[in-house]
Amino acid sequence: MNLLGKREKEIYGSSTLAGIEKNLTSLAEKYDYQLDCYQSNYEGELVDYLQEAEGKYAGIIFNPAAYTHTSVALRDAIQSINVPVVEVHISNIYSREEFRKKSLIAPVCYGHIAGFGILGYRLAVMAFLEGTM
Amino acid sequence: MNLLGKREKEIYGSSTLAGIEKNLTSLAEKYDYQLDCYQSNYEGELVDYLQEAEGKYAGIIFNPAAYTHTSVALRDAIQSINVPVVEVHISNIYSREEFRKKSLIAPVCYGHIAGFGILGYRLAVMAFLEGTM
Amino acid sequence: MNLLGKREKEIYGSSTLAGIEKNLTSLAEKYDYQLDCYQSNYEGELVDYLQEAEGKYAGIIFNPAAYTHTSVALRDAIQSINVPVVEVHISNIYSREEFRKKSLIAPVCYGHIAGFGILGYRLAVMAFLEGTM
Amino acid sequence: MNLLGKREKEIYGSSTLAGIEKNLTSLAEKYDYQLDCYQSNYEGELVDYLQEAEGKYAGIIFNPAAYTHTSVALRDAIQSINVPVVEVHISNIYSREEFRKKSLIAPVCYGHIAGFGILGYRLAVMAFLEGTM
Amino acid sequence: MNLLGKREKEIYGSSTLAGIEKNLTSLAEKYDYQLDCYQSNYEGELVDYLQEAEGKYAGIIFNPAAYTHTSVALRDAIQSINVPVVEVHISNIYSREEFRKKSLIAPVCYGHIAGFGILGYRLAVMAFLEGTM
Amino acid sequence: MNLLGKREKEIYGSSTLAGIEKNLTSLAEKYDYQLDCYQSNYEGELVDYLQEAEGKYAGIIFNPAAYTHTSVALRDAIQSINVPVVEVHISNIYSREEFRKKSLIAPVCYGHIAGFGILGYRLAVMAFLEGTM
Amino acid sequence: MNLLGKREKEIYGSSTLAGIEKNLTSLAEKYDYQLDCYQSNYEGELVDYLQEAEGKYAGIIFNPAAYTHTSVALRDAIQSINVPVVEVHISNIYSREEFRKKSLIAPVCYGHIAGFGILGYRLAVMAFLEGTM
Amino acid sequence: MNLLGKREKEIYGSSTLAGIEKNLTSLAEKYDYQLDCYQSNYEGELVDYLQEAEGKYAGIIFNPAAYTHTSVALRDAIQSINVPVVEVHISNIYSREEFRKKSLIAPVCYGHIAGFGILGYRLAVMAFLEGTM
Amino acid sequence: MNLLGKREKEIYGSSTLAGIEKNLTSLAEKYDYQLDCYQSNYEGELVDYLQEAEGKYAGIIFNPAAYTHTSVALRDAIQSINVPVVEVHISNIYSREEFRKKSLIAPVCYGHIAGFGILGYRLAVMAFLEGTM
Amino acid sequence: MNLLGKREKEIYGSSTLAGIEKNLTSLAEKYDYQLDCYQSNYEGELVDYLQEAEGKYAGIIFNPAAYTHTSVALRDAIQSINVPVVEVHISNIYSREEFRKKSLIAPVCYGHIAGFGILGYRLAVMAFLEGTM
Amino acid sequence: MNLLGKREKEIYGSSTLAGIEKNLTSLAEKYDYQLDCYQSNYEGELVDYLQEAEGKYAGIIFNPAAYTHTSVALRDAIQSINVPVVEVHISNIYSREEFRKKSLIAPVCYGHIAGFGILGYRLAVMAFLEGTM
Amino acid sequence: MNLLGKREKEIYGSSTLAGIEKNLTSLAEKYDYQLDCYQSNYEGELVDYLQEAEGKYAGIIFNPAAYTHTSVALRDAIQSINVPVVEVHISNIYSREEFRKKSLIAPVCYGHIAGFGILGYRLAVMAFLEGTM
Repeated sequence: MNLLGKREKEIYGSSTLAGIEKNLTSLAEKYDYQLDCYQSNYEGELVDYLQEAEGKYAGIIFNPAAYTHTSVALRDAIQSINVPVVEVHISNIYSREEFRKKSLIAPVCYGHIAGFGILGYRLAVMAFLEGTM
Repeated sequence: MNLLGKREKEIYGSSTLAGIEKNLTSLAEKYDYQLDCYQSNYEGELVDYLQEAEGKYAGIIFNPAAYTHTSVALRDAIQSINVPVVEVHISNIYSREEFRKKSLIAPVCYGHIAGFGILGYRLAVMAFLEGTM
Repeated sequence: MNLLGKREKEIYGSSTLAGIEKNLTSLAEKYDYQLDCYQSNYEGELVDYLQEAEGKYAGIIFNPAAYTHTSVALRDAIQSINVPVVEVHISNIYSREEFRKKSLIAPVCYGHIAGFGILGYRLAVMAFLEGTM
Repeated sequence: MNLLGKREKEIYGSSTLAGIEKNLTSLAEKYDYQLDCYQSNYEGELVDYLQEAEGKYAGIIFNPAAYTHTSVALRDAIQSINVPVVEVHISNIYSREEFRKKSLIAPVCYGHIAGFGILGYRLAVMAFLEGTM
Repeated sequence: MNLLGKREKEIYGSSTLAGIEKNLTSLAEKYDYQLDCYQSNYEGELVDYLQEAEGKYAGIIFNPAAYTHTSVALRDAIQSINVPVVEVHISNIYSREEFRKKSLIAPVCYGHIAGFGILGYRLAVMAFLEGTM
Repeated sequence: MNLLGKREKEIYGSSTLAGIEKNLTSLAEKYDYQLDCYQSNYEGELVDYLQEAEGKYAGIIFNPAAYTHTSVALRDAIQSINVPVVEVHISNIYSREEFRKKSLIAPVCYGHIAGFGILGYRLAVMAFLEGTM
Repeated sequence: MNLLGKREKEIYGSSTLAGIEKNLTSLAEKYDYQLDCYQSNYEGELVDYLQEAEGKYAGIIFNPAAYTHTSVALRDAIQSINVPVVEVHISNIYSREEFRKKSLIAPVCYGHIAGFGILGYRLAVMAFLEGTM
Repeated sequence: MNLLGKREKEIYGSSTLAGIEKNLTSLAEKYDYQLDCYQSNYEGELVDYLQEAEGKYAGIIFNPAAYTHTSVALRDAIQSINVPVVEVHISNIYSREEFRKKSLIAPVCYGHIAGFGILGYRLAVMAFLEGTM
Repeated sequence: MNLLGKREKEIYGSSTLAGIEKNLTSLAEKYDYQLDCYQSNYEGELVDYLQEAEGKYAGIIFNPAAYTHTSVALRDAIQSINVPVVEVHISNIYSREEFRKKSLIAPVCYGHIAGFGILGYRLAVMAFLEGTM
Repeated sequence: MNLLGKREKEIYGSSTLAGIEKNLTSLAEKYDYQLDCYQSNYEGELVDYLQEAEGKYAGIIFNPAAYTHTSVALRDAIQSINVPVVEVHISNIYSREEFRKKSLIAPVCYGHIAGFGILGYRLAVMAFLEGTM
Repeated sequence: MNLLGKREKEIYGSSTLAGIEKNLTSLAEKYDYQLDCYQSNYEGELVDYLQEAEGKYAGIIFNPAAYTHTSVALRDAIQSINVPVVEVHISNIYSREEFRKKSLIAPVCYGHIAGFGILGYRLAVMAFLEGTM
Repeated sequence: MNLLGKREKEIYGSSTLAGIEKNLTSLAEKYDYQLDCYQSNYEGELVDYLQEAEGKYAGIIFNPAAYTHTSVALRDAIQSINVPVVEVHISNIYSREEFRKKSLIAPVCYGHIAGFGILGYRLAVMAFLEGTM
């Protein structure tokens, strides 16, 4: 079980980001899972990363940030792999500008979480760890 | 901590629904919270229920089902109370018909969860119980 | 074989409505079928009625009137049951205001009849009684 | 002369609502008219009420609140009776969210008042009492 | 009483088409009516046929197939004659591609039937034979 | 308290217009207010008039007629002054052509009255005279 | 100088159509021009006719009737020949249904005349005969 | 018989404009009619002019130029008088920018002529002089 | 292996068209295939032709020209047969008018070629002859 | 080198406006250019002014304010003269209401400056004085 | 003659991709042309590659995959070079999701091929090798 | 004071680009400011650059070229830093293709300059150097 693609490093500061990673890592370890973190501002780099995730990760937690609304390439990358992807948005994208209300990524994801702040990442991890209810 | 408005009873059968309620109730009790369940097909009844939740519930988990896409009344009811509402959808509404991609409810909710099946309800409960990450 | 959801009682007067019901009932009885009539202005009540029709009725004749154009809830109710529904409109909804030209209900119905006046109900009954041509 | 359908009770508190009713009632009584008040969150209940107003009320003052923008059923109910309806909105619906700018009710009303706060109800009552200028 | 314009010959095979015509003809003859059948893939030929129907036919049953969605010419032809036209669609056009949901023909027809398969033609014939309910 | 911008002189004839002005003037005088009337077909002249109203008038009653639907200049003029403006429409603009349903002026007005005929002007005057309910 | 494509024969009766042709022919003959008339309900036949007009006619007066709003084929045919085409509409297409307000033909015509009744044909003939003003 | 509202003076130069006026005046005089010419860049001035035309002119030839596409005020002025108005455009507005393809004026005019250059004015004069065909 | 529906004869002249046919025929003969050519301006004739192609042709190369953008009938004809159709456009339809950018035919074709001039026909023939790469 | 059409006088007060004019005039005089200032709320007056600028001014700096979004007349006036026009907006029109994001004027201007406050006028003057970089 | 930008490596596996390259290379060599292959998921890298192609390649075969629908940058890069580009899509993009039906790249390409599977690359190579028909 | 993000190197040739940089640098040095230049075709690289500008530059002059119309990522990057950004477009983007008329970047910039050619960069530098007017 791994975590890929937490973006927005610049918003929370690197120490906070480290805190989030540590928090999520210790949660994962309780269930004997390992967690990798990755951040990039390049659409192409994120596409490469997703395409190479097949067979390597049991699941991906992905915050596509601004690319949520414009990237068909990320959508196609998610659709081409057999790894379930959970889309996480820190803010409630539905209460912001009109163009942020449409996610090109959501239709191909396993689950979609928005608006809980960084707690959203923890909920996403639990979604993978708990499996079914 | 309470749960309001789980709809779609007819889809999972009453025994399953009872199972979900029992599962969520025992989760809540570990944290010394109590949980109420309510289901209705009447938009007006749901509006009444939401308006009366003020001062009575610490939080509401709400699956507005078909009303998600058409009800300004439910949106206004949520906006008029000081109780945080988490919107839960069992299915991934973003991979279905075009008209299901727009939620009138989402912009006024505290958080939005879609596509995890009934596990979504458990994630919503945990969002309230864990508070912050 | 049953009839559900004839609305618009106020338009034709109760005596006329009784006449329609009598006419349709006698038609049904010739084929050894029974017919129940029901009218409500509550979207939620109609949803309840439809959800409970499963296993109780062989078919439903439904005039969703104003809800035709706005109710995703009725659409979902029809889709969730295994009873064929025939949509009947007394007027030709396609020659009226623009917003009346789109039916949210039609895509999930077995058949769609519009513009024949109350004769439309009789055609709908015959559609069920004759089965195939 | 009667008043139907003042909604939003929860916004102003019941004492204030009582105050408005008292104020409007005393205004009506100066002209030897009687005034009935009614509030409901059920679209169907409001439809029933409107359909039964024929022959009972000389006029209706109606604040359709959230249903303003979504209810074809209320529109049809108003159109099917011979009682003039005055639409009142407490806020200026034209300076709020985009979806609030379109009223499905307005085209079938006798008059339309928006933005004056609760004074709007008083203006509506005067519109009926003064008849013509 | 006559039948014009059954199209889609190629879909059901000519023997089946003959069967339909025979079935409908015997139904019409019980009421002492005669029935003519006509099929063409030419929009102009169908326009000619409709324009010449005046004074010749008591009614027309018309399946405009693909021209339903694109032909203003057929619409104008129907509007220019005093013969009632019943529009029949074999499939439920409302559950297919988006562009099939709009009928240019429907607003000028006397009645509209969709989704009953070939039974739709029989319902249309009965609509003419029974006159009123 | 003053009245500005009653347009549409040509529709009611000048004698009637004089009658309206006299009626409204005597109403205002009961409350010790004075009323000025002004009419122009020039968008620019109306803009000038509005811009000069600051500090001169306690309120403005404005029927922007055709400019309602096209004039950003009038909207900006209203927004740039600290005088409350009440928008009055003699007809019910919501039951006319589609392009008349959108008012560019309404979002920046204090109140909006439509459909009461010339009584609308009297209601607007009363809105200013009565202040609050 | 010739006239092509007067349609709508059925609307004015053949005697009237003959009258129009005679009237226009005698007008043309005063200027030593000859005039051919042609009518068809087939889009393809009209395309053929237009394509063969090159080198044969000095100008074409064309009433595309219902095809005005749907035919790219007629537009392409007009654009592919070096004969000026004047588009004539008997009715004012701009005061009818919304879909009649857009002409696919107009952008490729030399001139456009609408709303004068059959006088429009005479104006079109005079446009060719008078050349320039 | 009179001519109102020829605009675009600057495009053709005043001598040419004088030529057009002379040409049209001599044409009118043959039929014992008189012709007045008027040009303004002020929407309000044109509205005044149109409103005062009632009882003064037998007909108006109007080139609304840029106001064609934006002026509801001119449309309302034309609709409020009992003088037939013929709309003339020198260029083919349908082969220019998208926003020029929609005329707000056309639906309320008696006739519409576009694309013939200044010959269009002559055709408009003849439309009035010839009356019917 | 055959070729159907080369249109636009008038654009290239009949000698050139003959040249194209000869060129394509000799190419086909090298692979022991035969090629039929057909051209029509009638939408209905093309529909007939396509419907009769079943069992007669191994493949169809089709240039629907103007009908590309308006014909649901041709789309349905292609969809109703089991013969693969390759759509060819001589010009780059994507760099022309906005309405030419949407092909109603493309979604039901086996392949789509645009912009290569008449070389496009040769590429289409090779697509059938080479089968797979 | 001259300055035409500075509007919005009322927003900055006349003393400030005088200050801007003095500042710009002294800047222009350093380069031996003269500067005229003009302000009007009349669309027609601005059209007249622009049409008369030909041969009189070397360049125009124009703030069309509210007319930016509605005036085809100003656009046509700019396009009809051979004087380069620089469009200046004091505020960032792209971060305001949706309808302010579209400028009808911009496509026909030489340059477009928005959001720098009154500094925008100075940049526009420098654009003319510096010629090329 | 060269080949640039074959993407979608992950879909066909590298051995298959090698096979395609070998097949196309041997085809090119028969005509004494050389072929380079390049694949990247970075929009910026593809822009660089296209910009540097000027003077280096006689032609480019480009499959822009997901960027087809979103990249103005690739469109501008193609438009800024003098090397003809052929756009190839393996699938029939017109029979997939709505957003895939619009190509931003197509209007600036020399030719467009879609739906033939990997045979499309071979057809594109032949288009360059054969030159004209 | 620094300059970031001048793109389009390939359009003007590197010597010209050097010229522009030298010209702008000498202008900046007169005011004791330093200027850095940067160009990239990678959206992600530009995002990185903008995010790192905080505390390093007093201002940024940015020509987002093709990304102007598609990049939410660049918009978010600009919004997340406290450095004022001036958007410069060499061409008049408002007189080009429809999709170029909308800038996603403009709403979050301090100022917007378009259409002056490379002089636009100089105006942008002066905007920073002169501060206020």
